[in-house]
Amino acid sequence: MTPAQLDAADPLAPFRDRFALPEGVIYLDGNSLGARPKAAEERVLQVVRKEWGEGLITSWNQADWIGMPQRIGDKIGRLIGAGEGEVIACDSTSINVFKASCAALSLAPERSVILSERGNFPTDVYMMQGIETLTGRQVRAQLVQPDQIEDAIDGSVAAVLLTQVHYKTGRMRDMARITSLAHRHGAAMIWDLSHSAGAVPVDLTGAGADFAVGCGYKYLNGGPGAPGILYVAKRHQEKVIPALAGWFGHAAPFAFEDRYEPAPGIARFLVGTPPVLGMAALEVGVDLFLEADMAAVRAKSISLAQLFIERMAPLAEAWGFALASPADPAERGSQVSYRHPEGYAIMQALIERGVIGDFRAPDILRFGFTPLYTTHAEVAAAVEHLAAVMEQREWDRPEHKQRSAVT
Amino acid sequence: MTPAQLDAADPLAPFRDRFALPEGVIYLDGNSLGARPKAAEERVLQVVRKEWGEGLITSWNQADWIGMPQRIGDKIGRLIGAGEGEVIACDSTSINVFKASCAALSLAPERSVILSERGNFPTDVYMMQGIETLTGRQVRAQLVQPDQIEDAIDGSVAAVLLTQVHYKTGRMRDMARITSLAHRHGAAMIWDLSHSAGAVPVDLTGAGADFAVGCGYKYLNGGPGAPGILYVAKRHQEKVIPALAGWFGHAAPFAFEDRYEPAPGIARFLVGTPPVLGMAALEVGVDLFLEADMAAVRAKSISLAQLFIERMAPLAEAWGFALASPADPAERGSQVSYRHPEGYAIMQALIERGVIGDFRAPDILRFGFTPLYTTHAEVAAAVEHLAAVMEQREWDRPEHKQRSAVT
Repeated sequence: MTPAQLDAADPLAPFRDRFALPEGVIYLDGNSLGARPKAAEERVLQVVRKEWGEGLITSWNQADWIGMPQRIGDKIGRLIGAGEGEVIACDSTSINVFKASCAALSLAPERSVILSERGNFPTDVYMMQGIETLTGRQVRAQLVQPDQIEDAIDGSVAAVLLTQVHYKTGRMRDMARITSLAHRHGAAMIWDLSHSAGAVPVDLTGAGADFAVGCGYKYLNGGPGAPGILYVAKRHQEKVIPALAGWFGHAAPFAFEDRYEPAPGIARFLVGTPPVLGMAALEVGVDLFLEADMAAVRAKSISLAQLFIERMAPLAEAWGFALASPADPAERGSQVSYRHPEGYAIMQALIERGVIGDFRAPDILRFGFTPLYTTHAEVAAAVEHLAAVMEQREWDRPEHKQRSAVT
Repeated sequence: MTPAQLDAADPLAPFRDRFALPEGVIYLDGNSLGARPKAAEERVLQVVRKEWGEGLITSWNQADWIGMPQRIGDKIGRLIGAGEGEVIACDSTSINVFKASCAALSLAPERSVILSERGNFPTDVYMMQGIETLTGRQVRAQLVQPDQIEDAIDGSVAAVLLTQVHYKTGRMRDMARITSLAHRHGAAMIWDLSHSAGAVPVDLTGAGADFAVGCGYKYLNGGPGAPGILYVAKRHQEKVIPALAGWFGHAAPFAFEDRYEPAPGIARFLVGTPPVLGMAALEVGVDLFLEADMAAVRAKSISLAQLFIERMAPLAEAWGFALASPADPAERGSQVSYRHPEGYAIMQALIERGVIGDFRAPDILRFGFTPLYTTHAEVAAAVEHLAAVMEQREWDRPEHKQRSAVT
C-alpha cells in the first residue's frame, strides 16, 4: 500500500485533528516532547482564569485540585496495566526514581546493590549514584553492559532499575521475563516507562512489577515539564516508609502534626503541593489517549516505523546511515534511530527543512512515531527531505555544526 | 486616618489593578495561595499556544525554557537578599528542604542532628524525619519547643532548620541573630522563607545564611503549586555533591554520560525537567513584585495588620478571640492570627460572606495581608463581617462545621 492508502485505512486518523501542529512541520520528536492537544489551551485557561483567578484558595476543594495526583494517576494506570490506587502523577521522573529506589532498598535491608545497565538514561543512573553517596549503608549503584544485566542479578541486588524502551535505540526489554528473573533472586524490579507509557502496550500487573516511573510530557502529551508518574504495587505500599516524607503524603496533612505518619496506600508517596497548571495540561493529554485503542496505537506505530525503515534503506546504503534500533518490531518501542558520524549537523539541516527529530550524542539521529498524530505520508516525506539534505550536502554548513544548550 | 484616607495615601495602590480578583470577595488568604496577576493569563497562553504548540521541542532553546530555573531564581534572589547564581526556582518546597538538609549534613559528616522547633510547618519536619530513616548514618531529626531552640544548638547539630515567619502565628524569627548563633556552634543554618519571600524584607546575604527554601505560590503570586525556591550560599555550592543527583544538575546533561558529574554552581541542585507552565506563571508573579519597593510593601503590611488588630479589639473582648500573633509588628510577618474554640465554623461562615481567610488546626483563624492587592477598606470591612458572623451566630450551623479535604 502507498502511504496515502495506509493513511486512508488508519482507524486512528481522526485523532490528528485533536492536536495543534504547526503548518509545514513534520514532527517526529513526540518521544521528547509530545505535541499539544488542542483542548489543553482551554483547560489551562480555565485553571488560570476561573479556578485560580476566581476560585482562589477554595479551588483546592471546589475544583478538586487536591485529588489531581490520584485521579490523573488512576487514568494513567489504565494505560500501563496498573490497578486503581497504584499510580500517582507527581514530581519529576527523577524524583520518582529516587522514591522507588529508596523504597526498594527499604524492602531489602540486607542487600546493597541497585543494578542498572550502562548507557541507561541519566535520570536513572544519576539518581542511583546520589543514593549511593547519601546513605551510610553500603549502597552500590552498579552498572553493567546491557547484555550482562540478566547474569548480574544475584542475591546482593536489592533492586533492578531498567528503562523498558531505551531512549537512544528504542530497544524494548521483555518486562515479564526480567521481572520474573529479578524475583527469582529476591530483587525488586523498577521499570522506567518514560519511552513506554503511551508508546507501547504495558502490563505492569501482568509482569508482576514492583515499582515503575514514567514521564508525562513525551507520548502522553502532557506539556513541557509535565508531572512524572509513580507506580507502587499495592502489595508494597503499606510496607514502605517513604524516604521523601512529604506533608502531602501524611495520613492527615491538615492536622499539621509534628510526627510523620504515612497516608494509607499510594498517597504516602506524594511529597509537596501538586503543580496544578502542569497537572491540568497532563490530564488533557491522558484523557485524549484513553479514547484510543492501545492495540491500534501499537499496530500503527509498527506500520509507521516499518515504512520509515523501508524508505531509509537506499539512504542507509548510499550515505552510511546504520540502523541503531532493533530491526524486529517486537523488540522495539515507538522510535527508530540511526547512527551517522555527521548526525548532529544532518539533524540540524533536517530541522531547517521542517522535519523535527532529534540528536543524541555521540552519533544518534532519533525519529519518534506518535500514532495519534503522525501520518504515513509524513514519514515518507521525512525520508525524502533527508535524501535531499544528503544529496545537496545541506548538513555541511557551519551553522548546522554549532551546538545549542539543548540538543 | 480612616481606611479610605490610608488607601488614598497608599503608594502601592496602583498594583491592585494588576491582579484579577473576583467581585464581592475580600481575599485575606494570599499567604496560602496568592491572587492571580492579570498578566499570568496571557503569558501562560503564550507558552501553551506558541511555545509548546508551535515551537514544540525547539522552545527549550528558542524560548529559553532551559534557562528558566536560574533566570527566575535570580529574580527571586533580588527579593530575598541573595546574589546572582545563588537561587534557583525548582521542584517543590519539600524537595528543596530535602536537598538543603542533605547538603548541610554532607558539610558536617561528624555531626548527627538536624534541629527544628515543635510546631514548625510539616514540610520541614517531615522531610527531616524522612532523612532520619533513610540514612544509615545516625541522623536525628530533633524538635524542641520554640523558646528552646537557641539553647539546643550545640556541637552535635549539623543544621538548624527554621521557618522565619511561622505559618500559624506569623511570629518572625531574627534571622541574623540565630544564623550567627548557629555558626558560633559550627552548625549550618537553613531558613524556610515560605511566609517571608514577598511578605517581609529578607537579607540572606546580610544574615550569612547557608541555605534557604521558599514557596512560589504564596506572597509571590506564582499560581497553584508553583515551583519552589532553593538558595545555596556561593561558598557552599562547589563543596556539596547533591543527594538528589539529577540529570538537569549534571555538568553536561546532553552528553548523557554514565557517571554523575555535578554542574558548577547552583545548577547542580537542579534535578529533573523544569515544569515549564508553572515556571512561566511564577515568573509573572515575580516580575510584578520586582516593580514594587519592598520597604513600601513592609510599611503597608504593618499598616494593614495594625488596622486589623485595632478593629478586632472589641470583638476579641466580646467574643473571646485571642491574638495568636505577636502584638509588636517587628516580631510579625504579614499575617495576623486569632485563636477561637469555634475557629473552624467561624471561618466557614466568614467565607460564605465572601471574606476569605483560612483555618489552621486546632483553633487558629488566619488572616494574610498582601500589600500589593489588599486595601485598608477591605480590612475594615472584613472585621465588620466577622462582627456580624458573631452577633448573628452564623457560625453555629451544621454546614459550617463539616470539614473539607483542604482546610
